[in-house]
Amino acid sequence: MAFTPPVAEQRFVLDHVVHLAELADTDRFAAASSDVVDAVLEGAGQLAAGEWAPLDRAGDTVGAKWTEDGVVMPDGFRAAYRAYVDGGWGTVGVSEAFGGQGLPYVLATAVLETLGAANLSFALAPTLTMGAVEALTHHGSEEQQRLYLPRLASGEWTGTMNLTEPQAGSDVGALKTRAEPRADGIWSITGTKIFISFGDHDLTDNIVHLVLARTPDAPPGTKGLSLFLVPKYRLDADGRPGAPNDVKAVSIEHKMGLHASPTCVLSFGEHGDCAGELIGAEGGGMAAMFTMMNNARLNVGLEGVQVAERATQRAVTYARERIQSAKAGAPGREPVAIIEHPDVRRMLLRMKAQTQAIRALVYYAAGQVDRAALGDARAKQRLDLLTPLAKAHGTDIGCEVADIGIQVHGGMGYVEETGASQHFRDARVTRIYEGTNGIQAADLVGRKLSLDSGATLRALIDEMRRESRGDALLALLDMCEAVGRHMLSVRIEDRLAGSCPFLTMLATAVCGWLMEREGRAVEASGAEPDFAAMKAAAVRFYVDQIVPEALGLNAAATASADALYAVSADAFAA
Amino acid sequence: MAFTPPVAEQRFVLDHVVHLAELADTDRFAAASSDVVDAVLEGAGQLAAGEWAPLDRAGDTVGAKWTEDGVVMPDGFRAAYRAYVDGGWGTVGVSEAFGGQGLPYVLATAVLETLGAANLSFALAPTLTMGAVEALTHHGSEEQQRLYLPRLASGEWTGTMNLTEPQAGSDVGALKTRAEPRADGIWSITGTKIFISFGDHDLTDNIVHLVLARTPDAPPGTKGLSLFLVPKYRLDADGRPGAPNDVKAVSIEHKMGLHASPTCVLSFGEHGDCAGELIGAEGGGMAAMFTMMNNARLNVGLEGVQVAERATQRAVTYARERIQSAKAGAPGREPVAIIEHPDVRRMLLRMKAQTQAIRALVYYAAGQVDRAALGDARAKQRLDLLTPLAKAHGTDIGCEVADIGIQVHGGMGYVEETGASQHFRDARVTRIYEGTNGIQAADLVGRKLSLDSGATLRALIDEMRRESRGDALLALLDMCEAVGRHMLSVRIEDRLAGSCPFLTMLATAVCGWLMEREGRAVEASGAEPDFAAMKAAAVRFYVDQIVPEALGLNAAATASADALYAVSADAFAA
Repeated sequence: MAFTPPVAEQRFVLDHVVHLAELADTDRFAAASSDVVDAVLEGAGQLAAGEWAPLDRAGDTVGAKWTEDGVVMPDGFRAAYRAYVDGGWGTVGVSEAFGGQGLPYVLATAVLETLGAANLSFALAPTLTMGAVEALTHHGSEEQQRLYLPRLASGEWTGTMNLTEPQAGSDVGALKTRAEPRADGIWSITGTKIFISFGDHDLTDNIVHLVLARTPDAPPGTKGLSLFLVPKYRLDADGRPGAPNDVKAVSIEHKMGLHASPTCVLSFGEHGDCAGELIGAEGGGMAAMFTMMNNARLNVGLEGVQVAERATQRAVTYARERIQSAKAGAPGREPVAIIEHPDVRRMLLRMKAQTQAIRALVYYAAGQVDRAALGDARAKQRLDLLTPLAKAHGTDIGCEVADIGIQVHGGMGYVEETGASQHFRDARVTRIYEGTNGIQAADLVGRKLSLDSGATLRALIDEMRRESRGDALLALLDMCEAVGRHMLSVRIEDRLAGSCPFLTMLATAVCGWLMEREGRAVEASGAEPDFAAMKAAAVRFYVDQIVPEALGLNAAATASADALYAVSADAFAA
Repeated sequence: MAFTPPVAEQRFVLDHVVHLAELADTDRFAAASSDVVDAVLEGAGQLAAGEWAPLDRAGDTVGAKWTEDGVVMPDGFRAAYRAYVDGGWGTVGVSEAFGGQGLPYVLATAVLETLGAANLSFALAPTLTMGAVEALTHHGSEEQQRLYLPRLASGEWTGTMNLTEPQAGSDVGALKTRAEPRADGIWSITGTKIFISFGDHDLTDNIVHLVLARTPDAPPGTKGLSLFLVPKYRLDADGRPGAPNDVKAVSIEHKMGLHASPTCVLSFGEHGDCAGELIGAEGGGMAAMFTMMNNARLNVGLEGVQVAERATQRAVTYARERIQSAKAGAPGREPVAIIEHPDVRRMLLRMKAQTQAIRALVYYAAGQVDRAALGDARAKQRLDLLTPLAKAHGTDIGCEVADIGIQVHGGMGYVEETGASQHFRDARVTRIYEGTNGIQAADLVGRKLSLDSGATLRALIDEMRRESRGDALLALLDMCEAVGRHMLSVRIEDRLAGSCPFLTMLATAVCGWLMEREGRAVEASGAEPDFAAMKAAAVRFYVDQIVPEALGLNAAATASADALYAVSADAFAA
């Protein structure tokens, strides 16, 4: 099915949720004129619809293949990736100092949305690369920045993130990969990393692995970790890929979805000759990795938007074409398109409303990246608070929307050729990787809730309350405030017990607030009538039907952990 | 992973939710002594765990294969099916007059739960066969019953249901398959049916297709439909399979899951020689099909229980084995099994509570089948009311639990070898087939709500209110009553607009009521301590955390359809 880039919607959100014009008014982002923004959205849309979307199904059915000589992507991916590099799409949000276009990060977010909606698994390559760019921008030496950043920014080379090991999933502090200093200032890396997205492929002539490893005599836990840059091919004197490094993809996972994204087991230093460069200070691995992870978390939240947009388009198309049964209550017995049946239409409107809501949430958070870069300390704190919401709620809803998409298709939704199932399978991992959504919720109630002694959350709730109108939304804001206060008064295990419901509640409040903002804006904007009507209906549905659901989460969010531990672990298996 | 039949839990629900002893006190079900019930549960559990469960993964990875000569099942399925037939497991709930054991239907439900938890796709064969037994028991001629029923009951032959055609999915009235009378009292069937589960296979030496078709000069719509019995092989003079009939599986679907259940396109009468027998009266097809469908709908609700039970067992096992991170708030930094982490434990407890709740719902509904068979007219009406709840909520929750199961596994949940993904993929279609869950909700607010002028719902709510204790549950009952009353006062399109949220709300209330019943019973029952503690925790979680969520659905259940039609169908695609 053809993919239609949601350009008008993206522009609307950039204008009215992100207030992009404010950013363009600054020296730093002066390049982001209205014309440039339109050109970027249109151009990315053309690439996505014309070259990336047609490969999505082959990505699923053929998939990336492991061979002894490396991972091979399906036919067509190399050319489509080349078009991405040649168009400069990777450089949108990168600083001009490193070969970028110096446009706002949030505009790069919009570009990435379009690419991932067209082809979710393919877009992981640029997504991971953006994380590497971010890490090197903030923590790389001048030399590293000079040698690697322009080529990563352009996408000429891709980047990877290497955290997970078999015994160290969510517990990064447990990882064992070692880095030993060598005479030449280079480190020798030894260890095995798993779940490395695009850990190997044949799209580019080099791959830059960023690897967390433990230096000799380093303390245990996360404090002993350092970040290393490990190129697949070492650079020669001209900075070009030269001799192969001692790193190898030993296998790829057989996954439920995302088949065009090779998930690799990478073996470093099998022959004792894997050369890595230290990034930043020894022991500074977690700080550098967090730079990368925070970026990645926003972008995984964006994957929720990507899959939701695509699944919604597919379901709407099907529901307008599929003729079945007369409309209940209508005079005739003439069968109608199923979009005319109330429950199908409810499902479609829910898909629309949820998709728009998480787009608003993720773009708003991405806008805080730009505001923080302009020196706004409050924006940085708000970003920190919103990052777990964007990641967890964005992906929860992406999965929900893909799930509804199957239901709209009825029996055809279960048949692979229809395509609805691919979105459902592809999306599922987004709630797991880059920190499971449970980890996001723990981050929210652990670190983020107490940011600035709770002032960050209070400021957000105050602002939302000032702007919000709906009764249910105002009630939800009160509830969020009360639960937030409650959380700070109880034991950490009680916070954790209610963390996921609380995250959903707070994210729904933020979405409701931003959707109301969109609702007011569309009335004043003179938007095209169908666009305005759809927006108004989606906003109303969100505020009237989805926000009240979140009110039902209060009991779960405030439940004591005692309810969980009243029964022994053994009894679960009895 | 080994499957452990939940025998103690099944027995508990039969005793304390279904009140099986009351049934065993009747002449009809006198065979259901306590010893027999235990023997049936244990025996079915042994077959399921020992022979069916080990094939589940091969069913997924190898799957049923279409060949020119018919569909071939993976290795081992034939023998495992033979063990089912030889053990007499198909005959549990069948009347002694037709070679059955004359035990309660609800006991057959428990047997089928165990088999399907072991191997969901395999259990579809007996599930469909039970529907055919039901249809022939109520609508077949004496001759048809004599020739077909014992062999269907034993499972020596399997049965299929043939409704769907490419242009007629949910709209059964639109189907076109034709039946023309022939000189010998036999009908000639011509047409194509799709989505026919186990429409062909090599497990048995005959297959009995029950086919909805249109007779000449029949009125349009559902009134013109008749039900026909079409054997794969016509019976010879001794009632044994003889010459092949003109029916052929022309292809099977490539589905997201349930790979061991061949979903066939069946072509009837390609050579003008497909012989069928009329079942019941001409024009009585829908009545006969509803007999079959109501049974099938309960059994599809049971599939939710099956997948939830298996997914929960798998997640609990993993969470007890996987060691990761120290427990928050604990003094040491020693990593613990992830079941000790609050959010993981919350997920597991939710899985337990939801699984137990839908088991209670489905078993309770199945118990009404037996009570109705004993002549209790109120039980028949309650069954009619509960059937859409059991089907839709049972499968909604089956999918939810399978989804949580993946999350508990983290990254491993996305890797196919782990098995969590198979449950998630297998389960998804249960919300679609046998009438999508939207169709179930339409049935609830359309036909079932007004049963006996609304007295059926009122009687249920009154009984629930008398027995219920929790504040949230009592509030939910009030809400269900108010929404039910509201529904009867508004246009059909408004009812339909709120139908799915209302179904969830009402089903949650029924589950909460039955879970409270279980909670009281376990205190008095002297159950084994781990069992009692787990039950008490699950009941408390359900009543304290899940019931309140349903309170959040009021706005959606009572929203007007106008909210859906304020925007044109075209605007959805704008």
